[in-house]
Amino acid sequence: MKANQPMLRDNALKGKTYVVTGGGTGLGKSMTTSLLQLGANVVITSRKYDVLENTAHELAESTGSAVLPIACDIRDYEQVELMLQAGLDKFGRIDGLLNNAAGNFISPTERLSSNAFSTVIDIVLKGTANCTLAFGKHWIKEKQPASVLNIVTTYAFTGSGYVVPSACAKGGVLAMTRSLAAEWGKYQIRTNAIAPGPFPTKGAWDRLLPGDLAQKFDFKNRVPLKRVGEHQELANLAAYLLSDYSGYINGEVITIDGGEWLQGAGQLNGLEIIPDNMWDQLEQMIRNKNK
Amino acid sequence: MKANQPMLRDNALKGKTYVVTGGGTGLGKSMTTSLLQLGANVVITSRKYDVLENTAHELAESTGSAVLPIACDIRDYEQVELMLQAGLDKFGRIDGLLNNAAGNFISPTERLSSNAFSTVIDIVLKGTANCTLAFGKHWIKEKQPASVLNIVTTYAFTGSGYVVPSACAKGGVLAMTRSLAAEWGKYQIRTNAIAPGPFPTKGAWDRLLPGDLAQKFDFKNRVPLKRVGEHQELANLAAYLLSDYSGYINGEVITIDGGEWLQGAGQLNGLEIIPDNMWDQLEQMIRNKNK
Amino acid sequence: MKANQPMLRDNALKGKTYVVTGGGTGLGKSMTTSLLQLGANVVITSRKYDVLENTAHELAESTGSAVLPIACDIRDYEQVELMLQAGLDKFGRIDGLLNNAAGNFISPTERLSSNAFSTVIDIVLKGTANCTLAFGKHWIKEKQPASVLNIVTTYAFTGSGYVVPSACAKGGVLAMTRSLAAEWGKYQIRTNAIAPGPFPTKGAWDRLLPGDLAQKFDFKNRVPLKRVGEHQELANLAAYLLSDYSGYINGEVITIDGGEWLQGAGQLNGLEIIPDNMWDQLEQMIRNKNK
Amino acid sequence: MKANQPMLRDNALKGKTYVVTGGGTGLGKSMTTSLLQLGANVVITSRKYDVLENTAHELAESTGSAVLPIACDIRDYEQVELMLQAGLDKFGRIDGLLNNAAGNFISPTERLSSNAFSTVIDIVLKGTANCTLAFGKHWIKEKQPASVLNIVTTYAFTGSGYVVPSACAKGGVLAMTRSLAAEWGKYQIRTNAIAPGPFPTKGAWDRLLPGDLAQKFDFKNRVPLKRVGEHQELANLAAYLLSDYSGYINGEVITIDGGEWLQGAGQLNGLEIIPDNMWDQLEQMIRNKNK
Repeated sequence: MKANQPMLRDNALKGKTYVVTGGGTGLGKSMTTSLLQLGANVVITSRKYDVLENTAHELAESTGSAVLPIACDIRDYEQVELMLQAGLDKFGRIDGLLNNAAGNFISPTERLSSNAFSTVIDIVLKGTANCTLAFGKHWIKEKQPASVLNIVTTYAFTGSGYVVPSACAKGGVLAMTRSLAAEWGKYQIRTNAIAPGPFPTKGAWDRLLPGDLAQKFDFKNRVPLKRVGEHQELANLAAYLLSDYSGYINGEVITIDGGEWLQGAGQLNGLEIIPDNMWDQLEQMIRNKNK
Repeated sequence: MKANQPMLRDNALKGKTYVVTGGGTGLGKSMTTSLLQLGANVVITSRKYDVLENTAHELAESTGSAVLPIACDIRDYEQVELMLQAGLDKFGRIDGLLNNAAGNFISPTERLSSNAFSTVIDIVLKGTANCTLAFGKHWIKEKQPASVLNIVTTYAFTGSGYVVPSACAKGGVLAMTRSLAAEWGKYQIRTNAIAPGPFPTKGAWDRLLPGDLAQKFDFKNRVPLKRVGEHQELANLAAYLLSDYSGYINGEVITIDGGEWLQGAGQLNGLEIIPDNMWDQLEQMIRNKNK
Repeated sequence: MKANQPMLRDNALKGKTYVVTGGGTGLGKSMTTSLLQLGANVVITSRKYDVLENTAHELAESTGSAVLPIACDIRDYEQVELMLQAGLDKFGRIDGLLNNAAGNFISPTERLSSNAFSTVIDIVLKGTANCTLAFGKHWIKEKQPASVLNIVTTYAFTGSGYVVPSACAKGGVLAMTRSLAAEWGKYQIRTNAIAPGPFPTKGAWDRLLPGDLAQKFDFKNRVPLKRVGEHQELANLAAYLLSDYSGYINGEVITIDGGEWLQGAGQLNGLEIIPDNMWDQLEQMIRNKNK
Repeated sequence: MKANQPMLRDNALKGKTYVVTGGGTGLGKSMTTSLLQLGANVVITSRKYDVLENTAHELAESTGSAVLPIACDIRDYEQVELMLQAGLDKFGRIDGLLNNAAGNFISPTERLSSNAFSTVIDIVLKGTANCTLAFGKHWIKEKQPASVLNIVTTYAFTGSGYVVPSACAKGGVLAMTRSLAAEWGKYQIRTNAIAPGPFPTKGAWDRLLPGDLAQKFDFKNRVPLKRVGEHQELANLAAYLLSDYSGYINGEVITIDGGEWLQGAGQLNGLEIIPDNMWDQLEQMIRNKNK
């Protein structure tokens, strides 16, 4: 794999238009870059227009594809409808929606207020629902096939302490993914999700783990492959799932975490620290015991 | 199993107090009845005080245990705090919380407004979060062990069309269950869930499937055991999970659906309709082919 | 919960007969004890007749119920048929099968021979299949309802290194559980499983972790509740699942591990080690970052 | 998507060598074709040398890449070792293993003999274990990164009646996938799986559903997208997972079934048959009830 090269064939997404929420920074920006490199037009959206505009300018230049920045608070359904309309006005048609916008922070749950909890639910779950509803209604009315891709996390299905509002919201998005895959499949609207493990960014990840926390809890050690993920690896998977190449994948949540959650979950994976020569002795003891 | 007899030993819950949201009707009432029969005190709560009061009166009489009805809109955190305080004032201590209140209705998703979606999320996910937060903060402050039991549904993990807001909300509650089990286990607060299949009630089920829909989509046929569930079967499981007998079950979601979701999910379960004599012929054909 | 008291009502299993494979030692013996205390007859079986006989003698005396020890290598289908017949000859009828027999040892997978792998598969997966097949054919022929309960482990679904043959075999048993629940539900044969976490025994657990390994890898630390399981806790769950009280639970795998696998799986559960005063600082940093 | 074009960039697998068990026919042949088109060398293996040789000849010609046919009964560890050695002798190095060989037939479980059950376990589970063990030992000794890809099925995790031996064996392979991902990740050996839904073939699928069964149980109707899968769709996913592009996906089982298992599993997906005008009436009834 070349560090900055998409895996799909050149121009694989030529003529397609995607909307990426939270597309101005971090992983959203990386996925947007990849879609543009493959020839797609992309609408990027978030609440911060100046950030979006800079990103749009930068990426249009580096990739030669068209990027449209639109400010939008996805918690507000009317803003979502306006954003969709602006995308349609510019590009004539939208082929897919990448629900990537999120909000998260770490805290013991018992320190949270009801409001703090509510805010994360509103951004992540209701925001995703708003976008999906508005775009879905449009596609169904237009009888147009489309692809929805939701970015969740492994703790959407394993749960996790210290990020419980986010876990709840992402768990809700996961259920949405599976529900709409079944219900809207008949309209040729596919719905899938990606559950990324540790992909450090200057954005969300840094905000999530302030100070030296990211180093302290060295996420590499939680991963069998002993490394964190590269943005391009996530971007390749996202491009695949938004493209027609994944046309028979529907309702699926693909984990890309190097095996992180499995390493923690499997009861005896901790035996990894036993050195080789000790295994020789253990083998002897086990043989004797099992006689 | 005797139809109206709890499975746990007599007085298994003597001296315990539980709060059951949505405890005035339907499955909530059935679970409340079982807890009372086992000797527990129960606080029942919902928005409709008159319904609660009737149920409280009826159940106190039939079981001889203490029932306290408290009106409470769980979407409002202050009301939840007041409800908790009223329970404490009456019984001195609360040992467990049964998050059973819910809201749901069927609809193709593309017919939903953003508001309709939001309302279900607020009742089911935010309401459950509010109760769990308020009770958890109290228990942690008091250093008191406790048990939380959430009622979800099989489509919390499989997803389902036509009830997508509910699926999202219940998916969120499922993630909360697993998250808090890990985070609050150290405080000896256990968190579990039940995913019931078809348990018809005069309440939620009837409202969910109006007219003759329940007959038309005969849920018995979706179940390997060819029957719907009995309320007592759910009530027994709920009493077990709230009791100390299940003290090492934590973070678990127990499905009680007669095998419903598995029957639909398993690719070749439909071969059930092949009659016995046809299997004789098939066996011959298969043998010949595999030669 | 009283340490040695079953949770089900007295005589809950009176008149029932169960077969427990691997019932002579460890957890199999504990579950057998509980069934006997509830009034059931139990056939216990394993390859070691002398061990079985001692257990049978001891338990018959302590519980007053009938125990029949039968030597049987479950890898041999004919022996399984003979065992079933001996049980029927003695008790007239069998109501349930508890597939508990297992074989396991720790090793880096690359140190295993094909034969070592094969042996575990044969005992655990083929042995369970043999018992289930023989009993199922009998019940279907007799048109008799029955209950099958398989003991698996959390790494049946999470996987685990260093016990890979066992993980494969138990993963197979898990799929069998869900498959037969759907297929044999129509015969009123229910099939369920339990996935226990750390329940130390003088038997399997000691053999699995020889020397001081069990102390070294202190399994309590992997569990949110900070303790290992009590045999009675597992025995209560097993009795419930074999009894008619669980009549609508079918195809379910119930985890009883104190939340162990979730604690390891959830990405940010490791933040547990952050002390309380540091959370005050973090809260401040997070607020500033999110402004 | 062009019908016969791989999605990965030209020569994406240049210089790589893969072994495909069961590579002579059906889906194995389709996946082999795709690997060859992307520039890889492929060893194909099965018990039938004449079939392999024909396929090898045909594909070498059509793709211009190198194919080596080797007869091998994967149930026999020594044959597996010889096969690996022959591959190494020819190509110098093996980069990945595609465990695709399988055996399966439909039958009510109670009609099966213990032997029939055993045969499927031996081919599918033990055969996969043999190949994975032999190749893994080799890679670990050579300190060489590699990729293992197992073909399972959705009923590896949902279970399914009427194919229970296959479900058990594939359930075992699924657990192997997750186990080795955690254990062998440190050696940079990734292990993943694909769970395909209905992909009709002239081979396995036709043998699985003899006569007019495939038409009778029209699998299209079980799929939200209302179609079966195209071989190229599966082949694209397989090539991706074997390639370095998926370098951070480890321990994952990717379902590619158009949403089939979800459609069956989700409790209310059957409401799809309600016509549009009836939803208008229902909406009115629901509004009145919820007042």
